[in-house]
Amino acid sequence: MSDRREFRDLAPPEEAHETLAGLDLTPDPERVPLAEARDRVLAERVDAELDVPGFDRASMDGYAVRAADTFGADEADPVTMPLVGEVHAGEEPDVTVDEGTVAEISTGAVMPDGADAVVMVERTTEVADGVEIRTAVAPGDNVMLAGADIAAGARALGPGTRITPREIALLSALGVDRVPVRGTPTVGIVSTGDELVRPGESLNSAAGEIYDVNSYTLAAAVEEAGGDPVLYPHAGDDYEEMERLLHEAADECDLVLSSGSTSASAVDVIYRVIEDRGELLLHGVAVKPGKPMLVGTVGESAYVGLPGYPISALTIFRVFVAPVIRDAAGREAPATATVTGEMAVTERYSEGRHRLLPVGLVADGDGNLLVYPVDKGSGATTSLVDADGTVTVPADTDYLGAGETVEVDLFSSDVRPPTLLGVGEDDPTLAGLLDDVDRPRYLPVGTTEGLRRLGEGTPDIAVAAGPAEPPKAAVNIGDWERDWGLVVAPDADVDSLAALIDGEWRFVNRDTASGLRRSLDDALAALAEERGTDRVTVAEAIDGYELTTKAHESPARKVAAGQADAGLGLRSTAEKLGLDYVSLGAQQVRVLANADRTEKESVLAFERAIEGL
Amino acid sequence: MSDRREFRDLAPPEEAHETLAGLDLTPDPERVPLAEARDRVLAERVDAELDVPGFDRASMDGYAVRAADTFGADEADPVTMPLVGEVHAGEEPDVTVDEGTVAEISTGAVMPDGADAVVMVERTTEVADGVEIRTAVAPGDNVMLAGADIAAGARALGPGTRITPREIALLSALGVDRVPVRGTPTVGIVSTGDELVRPGESLNSAAGEIYDVNSYTLAAAVEEAGGDPVLYPHAGDDYEEMERLLHEAADECDLVLSSGSTSASAVDVIYRVIEDRGELLLHGVAVKPGKPMLVGTVGESAYVGLPGYPISALTIFRVFVAPVIRDAAGREAPATATVTGEMAVTERYSEGRHRLLPVGLVADGDGNLLVYPVDKGSGATTSLVDADGTVTVPADTDYLGAGETVEVDLFSSDVRPPTLLGVGEDDPTLAGLLDDVDRPRYLPVGTTEGLRRLGEGTPDIAVAAGPAEPPKAAVNIGDWERDWGLVVAPDADVDSLAALIDGEWRFVNRDTASGLRRSLDDALAALAEERGTDRVTVAEAIDGYELTTKAHESPARKVAAGQADAGLGLRSTAEKLGLDYVSLGAQQVRVLANADRTEKESVLAFERAIEGL
Repeated sequence: MSDRREFRDLAPPEEAHETLAGLDLTPDPERVPLAEARDRVLAERVDAELDVPGFDRASMDGYAVRAADTFGADEADPVTMPLVGEVHAGEEPDVTVDEGTVAEISTGAVMPDGADAVVMVERTTEVADGVEIRTAVAPGDNVMLAGADIAAGARALGPGTRITPREIALLSALGVDRVPVRGTPTVGIVSTGDELVRPGESLNSAAGEIYDVNSYTLAAAVEEAGGDPVLYPHAGDDYEEMERLLHEAADECDLVLSSGSTSASAVDVIYRVIEDRGELLLHGVAVKPGKPMLVGTVGESAYVGLPGYPISALTIFRVFVAPVIRDAAGREAPATATVTGEMAVTERYSEGRHRLLPVGLVADGDGNLLVYPVDKGSGATTSLVDADGTVTVPADTDYLGAGETVEVDLFSSDVRPPTLLGVGEDDPTLAGLLDDVDRPRYLPVGTTEGLRRLGEGTPDIAVAAGPAEPPKAAVNIGDWERDWGLVVAPDADVDSLAALIDGEWRFVNRDTASGLRRSLDDALAALAEERGTDRVTVAEAIDGYELTTKAHESPARKVAAGQADAGLGLRSTAEKLGLDYVSLGAQQVRVLANADRTEKESVLAFERAIEGL
Repeated sequence: MSDRREFRDLAPPEEAHETLAGLDLTPDPERVPLAEARDRVLAERVDAELDVPGFDRASMDGYAVRAADTFGADEADPVTMPLVGEVHAGEEPDVTVDEGTVAEISTGAVMPDGADAVVMVERTTEVADGVEIRTAVAPGDNVMLAGADIAAGARALGPGTRITPREIALLSALGVDRVPVRGTPTVGIVSTGDELVRPGESLNSAAGEIYDVNSYTLAAAVEEAGGDPVLYPHAGDDYEEMERLLHEAADECDLVLSSGSTSASAVDVIYRVIEDRGELLLHGVAVKPGKPMLVGTVGESAYVGLPGYPISALTIFRVFVAPVIRDAAGREAPATATVTGEMAVTERYSEGRHRLLPVGLVADGDGNLLVYPVDKGSGATTSLVDADGTVTVPADTDYLGAGETVEVDLFSSDVRPPTLLGVGEDDPTLAGLLDDVDRPRYLPVGTTEGLRRLGEGTPDIAVAAGPAEPPKAAVNIGDWERDWGLVVAPDADVDSLAALIDGEWRFVNRDTASGLRRSLDDALAALAEERGTDRVTVAEAIDGYELTTKAHESPARKVAAGQADAGLGLRSTAEKLGLDYVSLGAQQVRVLANADRTEKESVLAFERAIEGL
């Protein structure tokens, strides 16, 4: 087992593409009702089985005539002929237009026998003894001959045509109500981690359970590629059931996907199923993050095992698996899935392996697209929403220099880069302000790190709380105050910072990047000075001072959950969670814009939102 | 009634946009299962209700340690500590890591009490008395703290976010299985022409019936814009039923669409319903082809009446109605719906009305996009598939010059311009060859017109049959022969051209643009010379010589339908339809390429397809 799991011989990416292309996922063609044909792909050529229109058709309201009878007629010298009847659209004519007569006719009506042209109503007048015709027409004028639109036997639509509303129009005109289309490849998704729980079910975090991210994400990506996803129920740590589900999925689907389990036993089940009923074709790809990718067959079905981390799973799916599903469905790669930009910072890379680097996008002040690497560390789910796509870095490239032009493959054609990129302090007022901006992205990295990144030049804005020094060129576009202090459990007798230090209370702190922490440390320093000691000494007296959390509500939530007596936080959070509160001061939250982005539309929108507070 | 229908005061396009924007189509938000949330738009902000991960999580396989115990350890000087237990992903730890001990841990597992870092397995060795650690780690190394991915209370996704697979990932991680999304506006489509028949039903062409093109086409366009189309049953000429259906649609839908009926009685019904229960807000737009557009309300629902011709209906829908549906659904305009090209020919226009000119696209030899007007005349359904989009021509523009740069609004974001544009003779062998090219467009305009257009420079290829002179610069890229003659009804005694002339047979001819007709006329001329007369005289002796059809199978189909005794056609058609056949000769079909397109990929593909015949 162990040497199998070490992936000794990683296949080059080209080999992985070839192996996948060799799998046969193509389902049988089918016929679907016209109303469901949009976005499908024609499986075969459709020829016209009938003439459109099916009859010689008046294309104007007016009078059906024999053209020869009108020769010489004009405004000055009209011809008057008796009216012998009328024909409306949807009626069989019950009149014949003999020489020297006319019949009233509506647009769309069948030309009556005898008539070979229509005089438009605007060039006629009904008079006592018939109709005065004030223009000459030639045979065929204002008439669409049978088959002139499309004739029976003519090639109408070719195989492989993607059906959009305009193809629906032609199929309708031909009376085609069952459309022969390429089948939709069925893709089974089997969830294989013991620790995974389906969203909506209850989660036991103490037992290391996490929500299953990849199943629904891959299902959505399969749909986007033109496949029909089937989610198999979650087997948890019941390995016999997992094996049964893998067999069932292989029987029912054209392709079975699983994503890397962290559980050795679950991986064993997958290997056993492939060994029993299929073949392992490829075992690891020399692409970061494709190392754990598996390709094989199970019975008649293809099997692909994807990496476990969501951003890796979706990246490998998009690069290697989506093209195979699209091919099977007869679809082309979406047109908008690639954009070009320039690197905002230098990204070094020396692993010597082909790499798909997750990146985010932001427009600079001139509208150029800047590309910045996204790396929140292994397994972060939010990396996916913080990134817009990937840049392919070949194995022999050591670094991408700032300013270098790169091509970004978007995660999907529907991905729109954010209009506003903000970084910095986490704040409840801020969260509401962001709702007023179209497609913002905000990375709550804390005040210190936010200001550092603003100095580096990538984000549009940084949000700083408390006493921090912004980069010189930054422009303050607005600010507000927030009341900070201790969020306290109802049964804890903490009424001041001194009480926290001197009592036996369990405390939860924020990390040093946050403005809240900076203010707390300043307050502790002031108190220490009063007491004639130093900040470190008073801080050490607080049980939990070193227990830091990344987000503004986290300490309060630990208090609410009974895991602590007090936490660093905001008045608004205490109110929201119904906890006690000890105010330690007011803190200014400033929004600082990158100097070259102050005129950017999203920055202006955000500025207006702050003014509206 | 009549003055209402004359649309005296056409609204400027801006007013039409404003009137439509003032209609309220926005449905209530709803909650959908996560598996159905792709492509929907978030109705409200989603904040994290829990920490992700929910626990301090090992991010490597290895050993959980107290970091302080590893200080100073390296390859040369390892530290060995006793193993006190193990923790796997999905398990609640049953071990505590006290000072000087280690516990085995898997990626994804909960950090056991006491441990604050993980040493990756590659830097360790299991030995007799425990585990040898060959590196020092700092607190937090290889551990993802609870909430580090996203913390409880943090803003996760903003209102208005379009849900792609990456948003599905984040919602999954947060355990959100019911997603609050914008509602989908319901759009009722009522078919109002007496002459319309639903595809799939049988058609009585003699009574002027045609298939209803707009209902399914508009339904597909509504879907594409983010609406939910509802097709109401067809009322035919039952006006009471039509009125009932309009009321029902208004009660059930946010918007009701109909497309212009050619029947005055049907239009009366629409006016009556609007007058009874709503308000007519706008009556005709000064846009070609928006003159008959109606905008109003019926009860709580909005109503828009579109022009009747499919290309007009879809154009007006796309420009005026789709944006309103998208707004109601919370969607943005698709990114790819516009392309830039240059006019292939000069298009004159002097009507003085804002115009949406239907155009087709073709790439020239250098890959530049050429834009050519498409106009097959009023009401042609195939105009829609022959065109890729529209160019907006302001009212004060008299003409667009050849070479002028124009912007083309594609009919939908899924529209891909054809790779090959061919024009000319209609031919059954050709139809099969086109299947070998990806996205061809072929306009069967006949040999004469095809060669003229090739000379003008727009198409990639022209197909000529029979004795015609190609433009000098054209390059012959392949040819084949076809046997032409008379397709004869089994009960007709026509065994030669002379028999057709001398007998009393009903004949069906082809139009003068076709190569077949040219060959027939040459044969008639030769026969006339033998008889010592002229071509016109022998032609006049044929009953139906002037009865011409546009497509190669049409005469034969009329013979098969019993409407004629003989028709001009091909041996292959006679065989296909099981008819008798009199050969009159063999005719060469030549494929002539535009000189600057011979290296174009699609032209080369077509050339290869001919070679494969």
